[in-house]
Amino acid sequence: MSPTVSTPYLVIDKKRLDKNLERMANRTKKLGINLRPHTKTHKTPFLGKLQLASGATGITVATIGEAEVFAKAGFKDIFIAYPLFVDSQKLKRLSRLRRKANLTLAIDSIAGARKLSLLQGVRVLVEIDSGHHRSGCQPALAGELAVKGVELGLDVVGIFTFPGHSYSPGGIKKAVREEKAALKKAVQSFEAVGLVAEVVSTGSTPTALVSDSKLITELRPGIYLFNDAQQLELGSCSFEDVALSVVATVVSISGQKVILDSGSKVLGADRPSWVTGYGRLLKFKDARITALSEHHATVIFPKKQKPPPLGSLVQVIPNHVCSAVNLVDFIYLKDAKGQLKKLRVLARGKNS
Amino acid sequence: MSPTVSTPYLVIDKKRLDKNLERMANRTKKLGINLRPHTKTHKTPFLGKLQLASGATGITVATIGEAEVFAKAGFKDIFIAYPLFVDSQKLKRLSRLRRKANLTLAIDSIAGARKLSLLQGVRVLVEIDSGHHRSGCQPALAGELAVKGVELGLDVVGIFTFPGHSYSPGGIKKAVREEKAALKKAVQSFEAVGLVAEVVSTGSTPTALVSDSKLITELRPGIYLFNDAQQLELGSCSFEDVALSVVATVVSISGQKVILDSGSKVLGADRPSWVTGYGRLLKFKDARITALSEHHATVIFPKKQKPPPLGSLVQVIPNHVCSAVNLVDFIYLKDAKGQLKKLRVLARGKNS
Repeated sequence: MSPTVSTPYLVIDKKRLDKNLERMANRTKKLGINLRPHTKTHKTPFLGKLQLASGATGITVATIGEAEVFAKAGFKDIFIAYPLFVDSQKLKRLSRLRRKANLTLAIDSIAGARKLSLLQGVRVLVEIDSGHHRSGCQPALAGELAVKGVELGLDVVGIFTFPGHSYSPGGIKKAVREEKAALKKAVQSFEAVGLVAEVVSTGSTPTALVSDSKLITELRPGIYLFNDAQQLELGSCSFEDVALSVVATVVSISGQKVILDSGSKVLGADRPSWVTGYGRLLKFKDARITALSEHHATVIFPKKQKPPPLGSLVQVIPNHVCSAVNLVDFIYLKDAKGQLKKLRVLARGKNS
Repeated sequence: MSPTVSTPYLVIDKKRLDKNLERMANRTKKLGINLRPHTKTHKTPFLGKLQLASGATGITVATIGEAEVFAKAGFKDIFIAYPLFVDSQKLKRLSRLRRKANLTLAIDSIAGARKLSLLQGVRVLVEIDSGHHRSGCQPALAGELAVKGVELGLDVVGIFTFPGHSYSPGGIKKAVREEKAALKKAVQSFEAVGLVAEVVSTGSTPTALVSDSKLITELRPGIYLFNDAQQLELGSCSFEDVALSVVATVVSISGQKVILDSGSKVLGADRPSWVTGYGRLLKFKDARITALSEHHATVIFPKKQKPPPLGSLVQVIPNHVCSAVNLVDFIYLKDAKGQLKKLRVLARGKNS
């Protein structure tokens, strides 16, 4: 018997999930490179194990807290893809973590590298900015920073980047081009100082299936296992590839305007300027979520479409699935027979 | 000894909190009306008890799950300000809840009222739309719906509204005006069918201090105890009134651009078009958060201001404090001596 769940709740379509996992595994296999999925998307060891089973060689996380949860669940190869600037407490936590798993850390400054060097012989990648202009050093300076790292006693094994500027209409191609140029420059800067970038790691879900640099040794997509409304509207997936949705109840109706009980506290409030609303409806492609409060989604149905009646259930695709998953303590995995398996989102809220 | 806490974390300035609580309590006392704060903002029974101690007569919540948490913590007078459309499971939960606390529920449709009537003699308010155009019936139809509710066996005691359209620049005055007119119309519609609206409940934080309708018997502000960047930019509070902030570490610097470890997974992604960024910095009034990823806040400092150095701590004011609190399991209450008290956000994630 499946548990009875009150709306709003998150449900994963197992068949679609499996397909998404397989597609990305095939892609990296074909390229002969490693797949190291970013688990910040699902924060759920059960799902991370499915990724390993389908061919991933290790996992990526964003925080020490996430690494702790996955290490405890038995994951042995973890990359914290974040330029940590550690205090003494975080150093202690990293020190404990290293005894449980093979850790790779990240640097984008000498000051940050100096802090991590207190750990002795830690494996690191240099973060480079490939056009997203968030963290990361300039690609041409990667080698210089790597040398400083080596001098400080770090085991600098390569570079990584996040081409996050792929998240805009028409942005994917540009991001792939800039990523390729930046990786090349960074690898050359390693060579110029007599170092070898053994690891060249990149990946966002939109670029993962099209990046074509021969230098890449590893991809780190996150969202691909679920997909979401942003991916839909970027054109990097279709409705049929969306494996996670929020089940919501119609609680109020006025003409073509319908209120669902799935607000920003379950969908997340992410809404970049280029998306058409605050999420999409899985089975009503022409409806739009025009407003979102904490517990209300305002949906406008097109004139000729009869909205679903009061009390009926509707599946909503969040704009940004990573945010939606991080709002709930449990997700429900639905198999082909419609049975629900309750999964605890063990790394939810592990922000530090 | 205070616990050592890793960034990013949420901290409350106790002195400012006390001042905010006192200001609103004085306001409602002076008006001779009830204060029933919306606890979805803090989701923390410890803080709800401070509100009761400072004069609140009961509390407001958004979901059955929140009501369950507060009832378990000893709260005896709870209003679920949401047009629930209950299934059999939610009915069972409400039935259990009624044995623990005096519950008030909400209706905005006959179908919703019919569902709640299965509970027998439940106390309800009719929700009216006062211009926010979310849920709620038309004010002139409130009396008609109330009569249907009474016929179904509900104890209909009045009306409520949420003037959420106050959340826009210059929107406060307009919302107050429309709220006043809508409440009047709804009260008259009760009178027209021979009913009395004993409870006339309203309130958003921006309007709570300026609403001037003589009909109001109860205010339900939520954010006022903390305030946030939205309230700041709406002009409904000053920097000195902001009692909650996210403590973040500077992890990366490039010129005037600084990256903090407080991303959308701790600040929330709320960003209405009229705010100047993804939050504000408590002690750098001219800096702006220009981008937000899950674990990165990109801050641009003005040309003549030296940004804080790598590794330093910065206090960030979230745009929407209700979202930020709902992302963490704990908040830290800081007293005048700088001691931190760890509070569990017990109703976090209780979306259904």
